[in-house]
Amino acid sequence: MEDDQIKLDVALIHHPVCNKQGETIGSAVTNLDIHDIARAGRTFGINNFYIVTPYEEQQKLVQEILDHWLVGYGAKKNKDRKEALSIVRICGNLQSLLEEVGNKWGESPLVLATCAREREDTLSYKEVKDEILAGKPHLLLFGTAWGLAPEVFSTVKGTLPPIIGCGQYNHLSVRSAVAIILDRLLGQ
Amino acid sequence: MEDDQIKLDVALIHHPVCNKQGETIGSAVTNLDIHDIARAGRTFGINNFYIVTPYEEQQKLVQEILDHWLVGYGAKKNKDRKEALSIVRICGNLQSLLEEVGNKWGESPLVLATCAREREDTLSYKEVKDEILAGKPHLLLFGTAWGLAPEVFSTVKGTLPPIIGCGQYNHLSVRSAVAIILDRLLGQ
Repeated sequence: MEDDQIKLDVALIHHPVCNKQGETIGSAVTNLDIHDIARAGRTFGINNFYIVTPYEEQQKLVQEILDHWLVGYGAKKNKDRKEALSIVRICGNLQSLLEEVGNKWGESPLVLATCAREREDTLSYKEVKDEILAGKPHLLLFGTAWGLAPEVFSTVKGTLPPIIGCGQYNHLSVRSAVAIILDRLLGQ
Repeated sequence: MEDDQIKLDVALIHHPVCNKQGETIGSAVTNLDIHDIARAGRTFGINNFYIVTPYEEQQKLVQEILDHWLVGYGAKKNKDRKEALSIVRICGNLQSLLEEVGNKWGESPLVLATCAREREDTLSYKEVKDEILAGKPHLLLFGTAWGLAPEVFSTVKGTLPPIIGCGQYNHLSVRSAVAIILDRLLGQ
């Protein structure tokens, strides 16, 4: 499988997401989310990794981190990291994300949510994988904090199954969840 | 699959590991390694997650982090995190790790290394999974920095296959690698 045969993007949503009480909030960007998800994304051949936050100060912080690794000292020190972070894009909200990804591919992507719980609109990894390999543009949404807010689910085509291990505990970090889901969809 | 049917431990090695030049070094503990790998480990039902470092100051730092989440303010604030971090153990070196795990199970575990490159002693995920599900104790070693030092590979039974995505790039974080490998071995 080569990069140019698949049209898959990943977005990490910082608003609207839920807090522990289920209220809709905006979350802060975590530095290692940028690195880990970019590295996994580059490994599995996604096109772009979008960091979605409406807060300008947070966008500025992400841009400073990217500048360090793409054009600053980090770019000279670690070319592998530069290559990974080159797929990162910053986006203000879900609406502009959908427009940007649609413009890029020349058609609207199939937008899928991820969730730690089973939902009525849950698809199988097999069917999503087959559609991705068939060349259809897909956009996967991952939530920070306690997950994507309810209004996000009403805008998507379906939801990927939760990652179940052993028993009832499934409190993975979003970094781990992205890695596992990309492996399930694109790993050899 | 229930917790008590599998005997799997994960160890994150901070010495001996390689630096970028391939020299053997000791690395510093990363806070999010503790959290992410404990959460993935608890999700997939491993028994213990061992943080292996010979440096007493680093051991003390890890213990302080664990104390916060197991008995301090963090324990009250986030019971899910407490549950995950309850599987973490601190260990000084590879030799004492093997003794501790052997004593726990009453027999020596099958020790497997992980590596970003294919090696001559590479096993398949299928055969390792079958042996784990058959109830044999297994211990997976993950390296920090630029991976496990050569002398570690000479002490193991075999190596798990590298995680291949698309193309030649496979610079995953160790957090992502652990998550993917546990999913391949124990995910549903």
